[in-house]
Amino acid sequence: MDAVDETSSFFDTAPLLKDGDIITRKLTQFIDQKSSSSGIGPRRVVCVTSGGSTVPLEQRCVRYIDNFSSGHRGATSTEYFLKSGYSVIFLYRRGTCQPYCRSLPEDPLLECFQVTEDDSCIQVQVQESHSEAVKTAISEHHAAVSGGFLLKLPFTTIFEYLQMLGPSGMFYLAAAVSDFYVPWESMAVHKIQSASGPLDMRLAQVPKMLSVLRKVWAPTAFCVSIKLETDKEILLEKADAALKRYKMNAVVANELSSRKEVVKLLFLL
Amino acid sequence: MDAVDETSSFFDTAPLLKDGDIITRKLTQFIDQKSSSSGIGPRRVVCVTSGGSTVPLEQRCVRYIDNFSSGHRGATSTEYFLKSGYSVIFLYRRGTCQPYCRSLPEDPLLECFQVTEDDSCIQVQVQESHSEAVKTAISEHHAAVSGGFLLKLPFTTIFEYLQMLGPSGMFYLAAAVSDFYVPWESMAVHKIQSASGPLDMRLAQVPKMLSVLRKVWAPTAFCVSIKLETDKEILLEKADAALKRYKMNAVVANELSSRKEVVKLLFLL
Repeated sequence: MDAVDETSSFFDTAPLLKDGDIITRKLTQFIDQKSSSSGIGPRRVVCVTSGGSTVPLEQRCVRYIDNFSSGHRGATSTEYFLKSGYSVIFLYRRGTCQPYCRSLPEDPLLECFQVTEDDSCIQVQVQESHSEAVKTAISEHHAAVSGGFLLKLPFTTIFEYLQMLGPSGMFYLAAAVSDFYVPWESMAVHKIQSASGPLDMRLAQVPKMLSVLRKVWAPTAFCVSIKLETDKEILLEKADAALKRYKMNAVVANELSSRKEVVKLLFLL
Repeated sequence: MDAVDETSSFFDTAPLLKDGDIITRKLTQFIDQKSSSSGIGPRRVVCVTSGGSTVPLEQRCVRYIDNFSSGHRGATSTEYFLKSGYSVIFLYRRGTCQPYCRSLPEDPLLECFQVTEDDSCIQVQVQESHSEAVKTAISEHHAAVSGGFLLKLPFTTIFEYLQMLGPSGMFYLAAAVSDFYVPWESMAVHKIQSASGPLDMRLAQVPKMLSVLRKVWAPTAFCVSIKLETDKEILLEKADAALKRYKMNAVVANELSSRKEVVKLLFLL
């Protein structure tokens, strides 16, 4: 099977996206609004994907395979795209880092705020030490969303993620997408029982959607993908292969342990 | 191998808990303070576990198996234990629901607050609709922590979780603990490559730590465990078996789809 056939077969058997109609309407409104904005001229649209995707092991899902990703890269890149005049479709894993929130502690509500009582009036206040970070996060985030420049769409599973990757002028694929999955029809219906020894699993490869994205969904889009490896010996080789095989415009290569300090950028010339 | 041998072998090969010394010191201080509190008499101590535990598939972890759990049950139960005069060791999965926060939206900072500008002074304010929920969450949570009644200890992996289960007067085990795992020494060191077809995995059973908890770690503690199944036909049978096999004082039986409306309680008479 080639990638297009594999993709059709993946979608034919995937559980249907909940609220697909609502998501389509939001996307259409967001893109239409961009292209008709008067005065400032049309903004370019980029789809930034962010965070890891899950692979359920049971249809009534108790267990799943996940990919490590805090979502910092996707959230930060979104801030820079907005600053550079893009409108951003932010396709993010539920619970991961949000744009303008990366300098906040893990649990901002409980770590940044305090309650004070004054003349029998209870007030919620930001602690001085977190004051600037909290103000920036809330005001910048609200400005981007209410200004119509940022559309946030959450996903959890690989099935949701791949059904939501829509048409944009540019794709910046920072999400950690699963390479392996359990096809829906071969998935256990109920929670897998643990009574009878070790668990043997065979995971199928997720179709190489980058091929389809490039060839069928958005042949003219500018596509940036991200390659993460733990072994720096094979990183550049794999990133170069991705650049050529999927005809990406650029690939960001990073290694797990040093990814916050250094990345390498590979471009297709 | 019996459960005690399996447990030794599990801990011998598990990666060492980071900050183990600090955690031990915090636990000792918390328990000592309880038993020496003057005036109000000693408070009983319960260890509530909450949220799912991960099973890394690589030593330099990119992928892992996770167990679905929002942490609502553990967080809510913690509130009730505190209200009933217990001190609570809250052993929770990073990022899951915190005590007093269950009626808040998913991302409280971005969904409950707004920034207002007044005489060139930028202020952060709670939106009226979320005002009570936010005040309660912050004030009750701070009161419990600063009063010394609530000790919060986060975990992520099954290795961290099992190394942190310490001695208490009562255990209330709401965490969704992995049944299967990949032993550290048989784990891939680097990110598993996806180039060469499907992925076959054999997962070993996690030792039945409830046996060891009951027989060795805390023979006199009052132990409550929680059984979740997706198939209601086998739920009561499995819960009853857990009650008898591990000599739990009580087992909470719940089924995935109805767990927020109904649970069944089984007691050892």
